[in-house]
Amino acid sequence: MYLLRSPIVPMDIRDRERSAMEESVPAAGSRMREEIDEQPQVVAAIASELPRVEEAVDRAREAGARFVIYAARGTSDNAAVYGKYLANILAGVPAGLAAPSVTTLYGAEISFHNCLVFGVSQSGKTPDVTEYVGDARRRGAFTIAITNEEESPLAEAAEVVLPTRAGIEEAVPATKTYTSQLAVLALFWSIWSERPDAIETFSSELPAAMEAVLGGEDAVARLASRYRFVERLMVAARGFNYATALEAALKLKETCYLGVNAYSAADLLHGPIAAVEEDLPALAFAYPGPAYQPMLDLVRELRDRDVEVAVVGPGQALEVAGAGIEVPDVVPEVLSPLLTILPAQLLAYYLAREKGIDPDHPRGLSKVTLTR
Amino acid sequence: MYLLRSPIVPMDIRDRERSAMEESVPAAGSRMREEIDEQPQVVAAIASELPRVEEAVDRAREAGARFVIYAARGTSDNAAVYGKYLANILAGVPAGLAAPSVTTLYGAEISFHNCLVFGVSQSGKTPDVTEYVGDARRRGAFTIAITNEEESPLAEAAEVVLPTRAGIEEAVPATKTYTSQLAVLALFWSIWSERPDAIETFSSELPAAMEAVLGGEDAVARLASRYRFVERLMVAARGFNYATALEAALKLKETCYLGVNAYSAADLLHGPIAAVEEDLPALAFAYPGPAYQPMLDLVRELRDRDVEVAVVGPGQALEVAGAGIEVPDVVPEVLSPLLTILPAQLLAYYLAREKGIDPDHPRGLSKVTLTR
Repeated sequence: MYLLRSPIVPMDIRDRERSAMEESVPAAGSRMREEIDEQPQVVAAIASELPRVEEAVDRAREAGARFVIYAARGTSDNAAVYGKYLANILAGVPAGLAAPSVTTLYGAEISFHNCLVFGVSQSGKTPDVTEYVGDARRRGAFTIAITNEEESPLAEAAEVVLPTRAGIEEAVPATKTYTSQLAVLALFWSIWSERPDAIETFSSELPAAMEAVLGGEDAVARLASRYRFVERLMVAARGFNYATALEAALKLKETCYLGVNAYSAADLLHGPIAAVEEDLPALAFAYPGPAYQPMLDLVRELRDRDVEVAVVGPGQALEVAGAGIEVPDVVPEVLSPLLTILPAQLLAYYLAREKGIDPDHPRGLSKVTLTR
Repeated sequence: MYLLRSPIVPMDIRDRERSAMEESVPAAGSRMREEIDEQPQVVAAIASELPRVEEAVDRAREAGARFVIYAARGTSDNAAVYGKYLANILAGVPAGLAAPSVTTLYGAEISFHNCLVFGVSQSGKTPDVTEYVGDARRRGAFTIAITNEEESPLAEAAEVVLPTRAGIEEAVPATKTYTSQLAVLALFWSIWSERPDAIETFSSELPAAMEAVLGGEDAVARLASRYRFVERLMVAARGFNYATALEAALKLKETCYLGVNAYSAADLLHGPIAAVEEDLPALAFAYPGPAYQPMLDLVRELRDRDVEVAVVGPGQALEVAGAGIEVPDVVPEVLSPLLTILPAQLLAYYLAREKGIDPDHPRGLSKVTLTR
């Protein structure tokens, strides 16, 4: 059966399956692969940061924070998108993403009174994010650094540091630092909005669910085989998992050199759906919650246009698409981006190997990008 | 000479030229083409909205607006990106883009006190943008609709309407409504920040400069010929023209079905540059101002990686790239997005014709998209 554990498989999918490579690709001594596997432990450990995060929430509230801005680049910017939804939905706080160049290039004199500005960076060394956060602090913002490096320039620049404690990340494509950023953000906004249920899930079900998803890698290896000669791919999601679509697209671009466009399901219908065609496969993230039905509707619409869709989501969503990678519905939707990104990371890893690319060191990239 | 009026043309560019189709594509009775040509008059007419925009600025200030959120989809969302830079750079006001689904799907109870919320929509009929603006107004925001339809649901939902007065737009790909949205936003933030120079430029040099750029369409037709069999394209810009990169990418996706990724030059270096290769051409927007040097540096870096880059910008930038479409440096950079988008619109039009696509009616799209 092609990529699907459920017994209901349309015949055309069975036919397709025969062309898929039967052998799964063996795991090798790749740091990216190892770092993917470390994520359940890394996320479980974040729960121990609870007191530090509580203090950060208290201080931000005391500082009168009523508007949130995230400054970040690359993978961290995708974590920031998740943070924007968290602030809006959990806490009712307006939030947006910074354009750091308004400060670093244009010298904008922004009035940051009542603003909470997060700088998010794995290395804490991205100069424009650091400069933006430092400038925001001088202009009245309460500033928090979310970084894997407690001694970094970004950590210095901000009033409070929330460390992601993911350990050293050696592979160039960020994996465990991404999920640890999500975890810190989820913890922060769960505490802000006084939702102990989410915090509880965090330390209990979430790491086990992550382990379970990582165990389902055979389906991922088969999808990587099927995508071996794909040049363009479309990725779609909505709601909390819009961040997942963005991060999945970035991983596949930087690790496998694919042409990938990520869309919110709503934006896709505003124009880009014209570019959809039979030979442009789609990867859709669907997880039970308010964004689920719109995503299932989109999957049906894409199938009606003869687009091959693979879904990352629970069995029911896989049945609608006819193919995909199962992610069981075991944590609240708000935490699902910590699960749904895992198959995408594995897909980037397996597809890189299929293409003969070293996933740890994609061409032309270094671990710290010094944009100003 | 290939796409370049300057006398300095590297030899390899001259060689390339010989393979380009010599005949330019004739203009036809396309509404998209006509609407592209209407833009200088539409923008000139916006200057007459000055009193109405001044009143909107006064009311927003009186309402205590200190944070800005733009709610929009598709092309209007790209205009909103421009609006975010305007608010930050001209007025020092923090700004972000809304995720309308936080309201429409998740029922987020956002505290919009001290917020100025813009709903931007050509038709004024996008349900999720309308619902977001209505909800924001009930929750304390001061709300402004920027729309081409003064009698629309969005106009009803907002406290103030700033009409774009572009006349009926019949072609599905938005062109004149986009530049008229930019014009209204530029006028609004120029008045807010008390910059009469920008307002003056608006009614005087800008429409003439737009006419001049539209007159240079032979170079665009030749680039369309060269891109006839391109499947993927990368678009890059930074600063105010980041909006131009996003909108150029959307036009080429919806009108020509290309796989296009748009990047800020800074984000490109954080991962996606790994996907750059010789057969993936790049279109870069470079206009004199704080973002100019970083863009010239990016163009050089792409050329060092053997990427074929076409620049939209002044002659000097074309020389760095070796090819491109000239946009003279005649208006302040802050208004340049009203010029630089024009070659991209023309390129989408000519390339659609090269591909045998009716640019007025791309497949699978309707003029009003009813996303919730």
